[in-house]
Amino acid sequence: MRYATTLLAVLLIMCRGFSQATPPAVIEDFKPSVLNQPGQEYPQVNSQGYARFRIIAPTADSVRVSLGLGGRGGTLLKRAADSSWMGTTEGPMDEGFHYYNIKIDGGKFNDPGALNYYGSVRWESGIEIPAHDQDFYALKNVPHGNVQQVLFPSPSTNTSRRAFVYTPPGYDKDAKKRYPVLYLQHGWGEDETAWSNQGRANLIMDNMIAANSIQPFIIVMTYGMTNEVKFGGIRNFKIDSFQTVLVDELVPYIDANFRTVANATHRAMAGLSMGGMETHMITLNKPSVFAYYGLLSGGLYTPEEIKDKSQVKLVFLSCGSKERPDAVKAAAAALKNAGINAVSYISENTAHEFLTWRRSLHEMAPLLFKN
Amino acid sequence: MRYATTLLAVLLIMCRGFSQATPPAVIEDFKPSVLNQPGQEYPQVNSQGYARFRIIAPTADSVRVSLGLGGRGGTLLKRAADSSWMGTTEGPMDEGFHYYNIKIDGGKFNDPGALNYYGSVRWESGIEIPAHDQDFYALKNVPHGNVQQVLFPSPSTNTSRRAFVYTPPGYDKDAKKRYPVLYLQHGWGEDETAWSNQGRANLIMDNMIAANSIQPFIIVMTYGMTNEVKFGGIRNFKIDSFQTVLVDELVPYIDANFRTVANATHRAMAGLSMGGMETHMITLNKPSVFAYYGLLSGGLYTPEEIKDKSQVKLVFLSCGSKERPDAVKAAAAALKNAGINAVSYISENTAHEFLTWRRSLHEMAPLLFKN
Repeated sequence: MRYATTLLAVLLIMCRGFSQATPPAVIEDFKPSVLNQPGQEYPQVNSQGYARFRIIAPTADSVRVSLGLGGRGGTLLKRAADSSWMGTTEGPMDEGFHYYNIKIDGGKFNDPGALNYYGSVRWESGIEIPAHDQDFYALKNVPHGNVQQVLFPSPSTNTSRRAFVYTPPGYDKDAKKRYPVLYLQHGWGEDETAWSNQGRANLIMDNMIAANSIQPFIIVMTYGMTNEVKFGGIRNFKIDSFQTVLVDELVPYIDANFRTVANATHRAMAGLSMGGMETHMITLNKPSVFAYYGLLSGGLYTPEEIKDKSQVKLVFLSCGSKERPDAVKAAAAALKNAGINAVSYISENTAHEFLTWRRSLHEMAPLLFKN
Repeated sequence: MRYATTLLAVLLIMCRGFSQATPPAVIEDFKPSVLNQPGQEYPQVNSQGYARFRIIAPTADSVRVSLGLGGRGGTLLKRAADSSWMGTTEGPMDEGFHYYNIKIDGGKFNDPGALNYYGSVRWESGIEIPAHDQDFYALKNVPHGNVQQVLFPSPSTNTSRRAFVYTPPGYDKDAKKRYPVLYLQHGWGEDETAWSNQGRANLIMDNMIAANSIQPFIIVMTYGMTNEVKFGGIRNFKIDSFQTVLVDELVPYIDANFRTVANATHRAMAGLSMGGMETHMITLNKPSVFAYYGLLSGGLYTPEEIKDKSQVKLVFLSCGSKERPDAVKAAAAALKNAGINAVSYISENTAHEFLTWRRSLHEMAPLLFKN
């Protein structure tokens, strides 16, 4: 119950991400967002982080973008001279990735200019406010690992289920080398595409491997809302169904079909938001399966919950500075006091959004599989 | 020039796919389309192939779906009692996959109920009319190959480019086995996601391999509009840029990173529509690279064009029966007369759409890599 409550609180602050201070004067250096569909000029972003939208709907009565000042219903667009609808956020947005949608005459649609990302149990429009530290997740001229879609048999759900598997650069070159594995979960309303698309997990890994700052490992991402599709169900979340898919079906499939080191000290589980809640439950239920735990804006562990401390190699806890940083730091300190290798990380000036989680992956990866 | 003209003609009939006979009475057994977003009730399809749409936009003046009777501007929705907008196509749609979008108060948007597919240089809504022969591309309980995203270096375009690579079931089990490769191109306005998403190429392969009706091979799919993003550019299409990416960069990358048989008699190139035009040009320019050629609704070869007939192991030509079947059959007959192993295939009751190409892949695959 506590986790359901925590998660609900976390979900309630998901819409933040907008600075509430008096906004600076707008500099007119807007450029198309890097997440636009090919050839699309709008949405645009300026050097301060303002976002500007343009929607074609000549005879609409009202067009509103969901992004903008929290609690005020986003950004109302105005009819321009060419009868398009235009508008700019009232202030700079937080750095990083944001989901949004557009309300047109009372209906919710996506921005035809932007690429779509699965979130909120729908494909939503996405926009990227360039971050000062965007280099760590940039597409660079380094060796690239692959992200492969696998369809694994799931007798418990009577179907073939999809997972994406990141294999590091050179995976196919040395048929003898074996790798540790991180099972990495998305948040509520997202799916197994989130960590590669919104999260850029593969590029974060490629760049760290090229810089020799981590040992290469495999990442496995699958759908975590096995029995929860509708909002509201989270309150009665039961882990059993997903735990069976993950631990009894996917882990053995990965160990049989990829060159893994198939034991707990070479297996990590982490997740963001609801994926953290799942990580928390499954790691505690199955201490012999995973030895590294990561909760990214996804709850906390208490020392009392961890029965055999010798089995836990790392607890990584993180969130954005606009979430609950003090709770995350205090929880990590309490775990350390109890003799557990716990690390906390706070992403500066971000909320419950993907830049927090890209940075968290970047901080957590070098700490994995050290023992 | 002839190919540009052919292709323009082909593009002009892309909007067909709607039976023009007097439509039968509508049977009220509508079900959500299998391509809907999770939990979405609309769009729906009935057993006759009628499609029904429902859009929420309470204060809109006009909502029109692009799908429907060709030349009449699709299907105009009407305001229902609950102030949603609803409408049903005037007749049954062709079987298979269709792109569509929605015009709301003069703007073009996607249906929030449907999944999106990249076509027409934008992510479009998709709907599936169940085909009588859908079994060959169904997700079944058989061993599944993987579809992996690779990022390959492209010095000629100064970036890392994306390709998707289908590897057959068991690819990772036997480190000694090598495979032939089919390079398979999408059509105008589509991208490297099309053959897996709309085309279900991986499932078609999995099912044929499970049935032992083909020898397993690798499929490589990359973006073919290297220098063409805007409509209209097709008239001045130059193959050089894409040919360099494909032949000088991607083929060597695949041969270096996958267990291929790296010679022409184990390499095929095929493409749909514009991808056929590209296949035609590249196979003729580079006869020592590919020995198997496939044009799916994508033009024809004449015997005169093929200089060294001994290098060509197969020419596969196909289209839908609602396209130009006589031209395809005549071209294959002329090639056969000239001593070339040419095969034609006509997809019954389909037009310039993806069911034609799913079926074409299914017909072509058993003929590849026989010599």
